[in-house]
Amino acid sequence: MTFQAKPLRLATSDAGFDAALKARLHWSAETDSQVEDAVTKILADVRKRGDAAVLDYTHRFDGLSVVGMDQLELKPAELKAAFEGLPDKQRVALQFAAQRVRSYHEAQKKASGESWSYRDSDGSLLGQKVTPLDRVGIYVPGGKAAYPSSVLMNAIPAHVAGVGEIIMVVPTPRGEKNPLVLAAAHVAGVSRAFTVGGAQAVAALAYGTETVPRVDKITGPGNAYVASAKRRVFGQVGIDMIAGPSEILVLADGSTPAEWVAMDLFSQAEHDELAQSILLCPDPYYIDAVQGAIYRLLNEMPRAEIIAKSLNGRGALIHTRSMEEACEISNRIAPEHLEIASTEPHRWEPLLRHAGAIFLGGFTSESLGDYCAGPNHVLPTSTTARFSSPLGVYDFQKRSSIIEVSEAGANQLGVIAAELAYGEGLQAHARAAEMRLKK
Amino acid sequence: MTFQAKPLRLATSDAGFDAALKARLHWSAETDSQVEDAVTKILADVRKRGDAAVLDYTHRFDGLSVVGMDQLELKPAELKAAFEGLPDKQRVALQFAAQRVRSYHEAQKKASGESWSYRDSDGSLLGQKVTPLDRVGIYVPGGKAAYPSSVLMNAIPAHVAGVGEIIMVVPTPRGEKNPLVLAAAHVAGVSRAFTVGGAQAVAALAYGTETVPRVDKITGPGNAYVASAKRRVFGQVGIDMIAGPSEILVLADGSTPAEWVAMDLFSQAEHDELAQSILLCPDPYYIDAVQGAIYRLLNEMPRAEIIAKSLNGRGALIHTRSMEEACEISNRIAPEHLEIASTEPHRWEPLLRHAGAIFLGGFTSESLGDYCAGPNHVLPTSTTARFSSPLGVYDFQKRSSIIEVSEAGANQLGVIAAELAYGEGLQAHARAAEMRLKK
Repeated sequence: MTFQAKPLRLATSDAGFDAALKARLHWSAETDSQVEDAVTKILADVRKRGDAAVLDYTHRFDGLSVVGMDQLELKPAELKAAFEGLPDKQRVALQFAAQRVRSYHEAQKKASGESWSYRDSDGSLLGQKVTPLDRVGIYVPGGKAAYPSSVLMNAIPAHVAGVGEIIMVVPTPRGEKNPLVLAAAHVAGVSRAFTVGGAQAVAALAYGTETVPRVDKITGPGNAYVASAKRRVFGQVGIDMIAGPSEILVLADGSTPAEWVAMDLFSQAEHDELAQSILLCPDPYYIDAVQGAIYRLLNEMPRAEIIAKSLNGRGALIHTRSMEEACEISNRIAPEHLEIASTEPHRWEPLLRHAGAIFLGGFTSESLGDYCAGPNHVLPTSTTARFSSPLGVYDFQKRSSIIEVSEAGANQLGVIAAELAYGEGLQAHARAAEMRLKK
Repeated sequence: MTFQAKPLRLATSDAGFDAALKARLHWSAETDSQVEDAVTKILADVRKRGDAAVLDYTHRFDGLSVVGMDQLELKPAELKAAFEGLPDKQRVALQFAAQRVRSYHEAQKKASGESWSYRDSDGSLLGQKVTPLDRVGIYVPGGKAAYPSSVLMNAIPAHVAGVGEIIMVVPTPRGEKNPLVLAAAHVAGVSRAFTVGGAQAVAALAYGTETVPRVDKITGPGNAYVASAKRRVFGQVGIDMIAGPSEILVLADGSTPAEWVAMDLFSQAEHDELAQSILLCPDPYYIDAVQGAIYRLLNEMPRAEIIAKSLNGRGALIHTRSMEEACEISNRIAPEHLEIASTEPHRWEPLLRHAGAIFLGGFTSESLGDYCAGPNHVLPTSTTARFSSPLGVYDFQKRSSIIEVSEAGANQLGVIAAELAYGEGLQAHARAAEMRLKK
């Protein structure tokens, strides 16, 4: 069977371009009321019955018949054995990737995740203390979309932040364990791991059970049940973002081989039929060349069917008037992954305000970033790069303001605070400040 | 009418202390289905009908009969006039507070909010670009709980972050405008302001109308309708935390005048009957002294009734075995405001892992921090200090990863990425990496 892929061809000079682009970008995170109802029930049940409920749901949804939670725990020795049993090349690759990811996140912590303070002219101390979370939970999908790289990308920043305990949950439908996922947990320094998934796993982490410890934050991707459960436990625990379909946007000036760009568009499209791959380019002949490469390369790909559905349904090749205009449109899209396939990436980068990750120059394929360049591959999707950031060390830290007002400081600040507090009708606030004034 | 306040007295050595503390801390963010239904309808209506819907709801809920949205806009000249019309003392106090808050947040930006990058041994560039949000919305409550200080605390960090446009919304029931709130908007550098509130204001900011521009993030406190609306538009826009009742925890070694501590407990309690004030102290005689001060001072307070309800319903005076144990219990509570009323605050501070803000030493009353010490007064409540942080410049910035892989880097990383991508069954990822290897 052969497939054809022809992403929608648009030009910014077309009448109706804005509407056509908007329609192409449209993606709705519709909530399914059946999913919502099921999740409500599962959360309440796990909260009430703990381990017993987790065992029931794991039996029902994953077909695992076990009598006790200890049979659902992956012990450190099993993780280690999985790592040691990998083919040499995989083991080396996993360690190499982990080391790069660790180095990058260590630099991130140093650059923006340390405590700071200063003294003002009154001798008062002001600052912030940055501390790691005590315990976090990492959700790792099982089954067909089991990604060991995601284990590294979630667990390593937590580890670098100094999180005390990292609890991983991963469903193993019908008992199938993915050795690369187990090995990644070993390499990334996961503290404990359970073969539990779905809303029941999220509930166990959020509320705690007799066996699964309650965590302070849950990160990691999952299906609609997991996303719904995370949304509902938010507040009880912290969560990372709720991810939509993955996206790539390539800004091309025509200098990168068209096959490379075509393959980069494929690499996003192969994730999922709903994934979105967009090319922006001022050169129509180059766009033709990329379309030609898509035709030529598609049927070499084992996942050609998914790629074709994604490109035909959600892909776009957009002819812009200029690279400057391409940058403007990219800002409107606020893509998860943004490649600047140009010989002058540093000319365009300052114009790009919203993106999860920016890949500069033709050699920087998104796939290098996905696995081993170092930066995190958990990135904001669906235009949320307008206001949110890649997963990072900062997601596993929190800040406490530090305020130590000196006696002299209290004497000056007290007058001001009292004035404003009386203005707000909060007299106890005012009195508390006034009591500290010099008599 | 006189009031009595007697917070629950507990001792950690009591049998059943853990359960008693848990019961005292219990606060449930129950959602009210009537509120939820109303909010669903308002959001959909504003999304569909824009300005017309906003005008309808503002008429219905705030009693404002106006014919056009321009009548709901507070023009810069009106904000400036409000500022200039303030009594001298208030004007000076507002400016002084704004300057302190600005200095602190500038230090915060410098310490943890700047872009960074480095080159690895292959010449690849890795880092993060930190950019301000384009446009944010600030919700300011109107009516009885109108706090100008909150205008400063929300708008100034956004301004320091470099946000392009700051849109303020504030309800003015029956047309009553609070001059201090308007003046604060002038001082803090708000770009545009509308006298709109409730779920309709949140909807206007999240979706945009003909007049109100769509924003990227909404911050600021509000009532149950506002909180529900913020929760629902999350994803469409960013939001800050959803705040619960305010809390103070005082760790006292007995060295601070008991009246000061009593007044600090009052200053939290006067906010709201559901506010929570807790004292932890190893000295039972000092606890008696604080209780005595509560008796003596309560009826001097204009808000004595609220204070009494809050202290009687949710307050606690807890006798601990030691200051170390008090610190442990404080970590369990993860309070919003944490005062260390001690002559050795730096001895105890390192033991305190979870708190929104830590106030060191007897001179540092919470009220100084609320108004003018500099740090933000928007802080995580209801134990969420376990995983979240004070509002800050970082809430108005987002990060984009920067990755520029050199030709030599692509040659090394490509082998690793391909190995891992094949392991995950993502062949297009692998091919994209392999195409960049040297031939």
